[in-house]
Amino acid sequence: MNGMIPWLTTVVVLAALGSHHAARGSAQGQSSAQPPNFVIIFTDDQGYGDLGVQGHPTLRTPRIDRMAAEGQRWTSFYTAPVCTPSRAQLLTGRLAIRTGLASGVLFPDSFGGLQPSEITVAEVLKQKGYATAAIGKWHLGHLPEYLPINQGFDSYFGIPYSNDMDRRDDTPRDTGSPRFLDPTPAHFNVPMMRGEKIIERPADQTTITGRYTDEAIAFIRRNRTQPFFLYLAHNLPHVPLFRSKDFAGRSTRGVYGDVIEEIDANVGRVLDTLRELQLDRRTLVLFLSDNGPWLPYLDQGGSAGLLRNGKSTTWEGGMRVPAIFHWPGTIPAGTVVDGIGSELDVLQTFATLAGIPAPRDRALDGYDLSPTLRGKANSPRQTLFYYQGAALNGIRRGSFKTHAELVNGRPGKWELFNLDVDPSEKIDLSEARPEIVAELLKLAQEHQKTVVPVEDQIAKRGRGATPK
Amino acid sequence: MNGMIPWLTTVVVLAALGSHHAARGSAQGQSSAQPPNFVIIFTDDQGYGDLGVQGHPTLRTPRIDRMAAEGQRWTSFYTAPVCTPSRAQLLTGRLAIRTGLASGVLFPDSFGGLQPSEITVAEVLKQKGYATAAIGKWHLGHLPEYLPINQGFDSYFGIPYSNDMDRRDDTPRDTGSPRFLDPTPAHFNVPMMRGEKIIERPADQTTITGRYTDEAIAFIRRNRTQPFFLYLAHNLPHVPLFRSKDFAGRSTRGVYGDVIEEIDANVGRVLDTLRELQLDRRTLVLFLSDNGPWLPYLDQGGSAGLLRNGKSTTWEGGMRVPAIFHWPGTIPAGTVVDGIGSELDVLQTFATLAGIPAPRDRALDGYDLSPTLRGKANSPRQTLFYYQGAALNGIRRGSFKTHAELVNGRPGKWELFNLDVDPSEKIDLSEARPEIVAELLKLAQEHQKTVVPVEDQIAKRGRGATPK
Repeated sequence: MNGMIPWLTTVVVLAALGSHHAARGSAQGQSSAQPPNFVIIFTDDQGYGDLGVQGHPTLRTPRIDRMAAEGQRWTSFYTAPVCTPSRAQLLTGRLAIRTGLASGVLFPDSFGGLQPSEITVAEVLKQKGYATAAIGKWHLGHLPEYLPINQGFDSYFGIPYSNDMDRRDDTPRDTGSPRFLDPTPAHFNVPMMRGEKIIERPADQTTITGRYTDEAIAFIRRNRTQPFFLYLAHNLPHVPLFRSKDFAGRSTRGVYGDVIEEIDANVGRVLDTLRELQLDRRTLVLFLSDNGPWLPYLDQGGSAGLLRNGKSTTWEGGMRVPAIFHWPGTIPAGTVVDGIGSELDVLQTFATLAGIPAPRDRALDGYDLSPTLRGKANSPRQTLFYYQGAALNGIRRGSFKTHAELVNGRPGKWELFNLDVDPSEKIDLSEARPEIVAELLKLAQEHQKTVVPVEDQIAKRGRGATPK
Repeated sequence: MNGMIPWLTTVVVLAALGSHHAARGSAQGQSSAQPPNFVIIFTDDQGYGDLGVQGHPTLRTPRIDRMAAEGQRWTSFYTAPVCTPSRAQLLTGRLAIRTGLASGVLFPDSFGGLQPSEITVAEVLKQKGYATAAIGKWHLGHLPEYLPINQGFDSYFGIPYSNDMDRRDDTPRDTGSPRFLDPTPAHFNVPMMRGEKIIERPADQTTITGRYTDEAIAFIRRNRTQPFFLYLAHNLPHVPLFRSKDFAGRSTRGVYGDVIEEIDANVGRVLDTLRELQLDRRTLVLFLSDNGPWLPYLDQGGSAGLLRNGKSTTWEGGMRVPAIFHWPGTIPAGTVVDGIGSELDVLQTFATLAGIPAPRDRALDGYDLSPTLRGKANSPRQTLFYYQGAALNGIRRGSFKTHAELVNGRPGKWELFNLDVDPSEKIDLSEARPEIVAELLKLAQEHQKTVVPVEDQIAKRGRGATPK
């Protein structure tokens, strides 16, 4: 409760070392003509406010804070409001409404998933021979055709959907349930898979963050001489909250803090490995959460900081997440970007950096952020569409966002916020500036013309689909 | 809206220079046996969330952030909920209830003030011959006997009360009033004083932050060869918001952001002066806000970040403020303290560091934080009392706070929060842990026995007192 944590001392020391790194030339085994490596570290339900560097008073995340100090932190970076659409968007660069994965999340009895015809970041990078691995939570379909190894990834190790699924008993999903407040792995019969096979069930969630990281480090070591793409999707801090013995009771912030601090230490292990292998200056690492904090779980959920509301909503707290890019020598250290970015931009950006054309036969919703990452331009993204399920109920352009809460599944009153001035969405300007609302709604109409109806993958459910 | 601001690069460079500073021996003109200099930079109504380093997405405060990176940031540091009691507590180390200044704020027609019998930080330091200056907003009484020069300060330059007072017309103090949204200095006939004399009226608030800083820098230069105490109390970002031409329209956060960014640059000027004079390693600088953000003013007011509510309340957003201590070579760089601290501790801490005994003939409410500043101990403060006006309606001990909203001026239902785990005060634990509430209320009773009734200075009002 009363701890004192030095963090910047270390930053400074390492930053000073940085100049030596600069002088030591190219990494062992990778030629400088080779495209960069990519690592995405994706957390689950971590809120905008759940980092030291984002202002939390008692959570300590020295490694992620240092990553920000050495890299570039985006303060208006967006995902989707819940897990499945967020992951679909990150990996395809397409709004989830285009892939049939917008309307909710997949469950153990879902038949649907990310269609094999979709092109993932992994598939794009495969064109230049990248080694690819998906580690952690997938949640884009658990039937074989939807699994990572059929979506461009050479290997897969992780749980196929959320860590609160496959509940063994009739524990309701309520916030006060002991199943969530004091969980044991046995209560959640989630399978751990390798490739297409279940190798452990229930997955031992108490050690899962460290084990994912072990796999990630082994993958990096195996592929040190060739370009690689690592997608490391932790299934925590999504409830139920598990942490290893080493982290239990460590955080002033309680169990949620323990979990975040364990993730933080494991982010550090990945970055340390890259540095040790002299790959840090050839590797773009992106740290990102999949959506906002799950507020109904109270202290078992996170905090959106000064942002309004959380997960499952299209208020800023639901979709704006911590986002840090790290690539020493290419991304200027300690920069903060307040222009708009989105997980939708990752595919375009990685494709550009790898020198691979992005798919042209389908609608993509991303922008190439690489000039901004290099510190040479403002973000190219001016517009963002907010989908709550399959309903478009928010449009941001520049600093203005018009937003309508859903009434019977359809947008109600459109309000207007200036997010740069009023990030907490407290001041409705719709009556003062109706012309801006009208302009934004026109953008929405134009956008909606580009959305071709597809089969809803989320709606496809039935007992036979459950993994056995 | 879309800017990219590098900040850490500079930190790293300066931190690297730090080692040279360490080697260059004692400062010109000040001997190493001499006690340290003290500078307090106090802002007005700046919220917990209104700094880059506290997680604001669009406000940029590179100089204050750097101050934190080079110093020690406290994440649970408290003041009083409004101006006058906050200033009384900071300067006397005594709860405002003991000095008759708790029940509200002083106005231009107030007869009351901080009693000359009270002992201020300036008076304590005078015992060792410190040069002392008060610059900026005073708000502890504008009749001569209450002014800074009669309270231990060698000089005074500033406005005697809030910058929204002495309104020339009948403009109501409502949030939508053009007097506040687009103010001109003439609307607020606040006097600027030097010593006991009014030298300008209305004070030109558009240049006021820079002029206060000019005075502060001149004071530091004049006193470079002897120990000094500078109390620099900016009257912004309290509404009405003014900023100079150089900062108008500069911030993505709007006018409020312009004002904060102008303060930030001027904090930088003070720190640069100390460094230039080689006094930085002999000077403890404390950056602090006087209370939480004034939320009813909407985008003209600030943000408490993830904390609940703001100014005038005893929720955390009203009393927990940004607090950064800076003293290169003595305070370990880049440390974060989440133990409890208070402006009440400043007098004790400064007295200890200066080697002067604190007053013993009266009740003091402070602790010596110097071992914590040196990185050698956790904060000695375990307890905090929250006063809304003259009513005690909150008690914190360790991580637990019991709090009651006032009903007809008296505490209503006592709720209970675990602030370390739930800094946003969303989870009332009073039914689950009634014994903790009882324990805290017992502490309150014991505390209240030590409070001797004194004359209420705030209640003393009448036309004759208005400065002319």
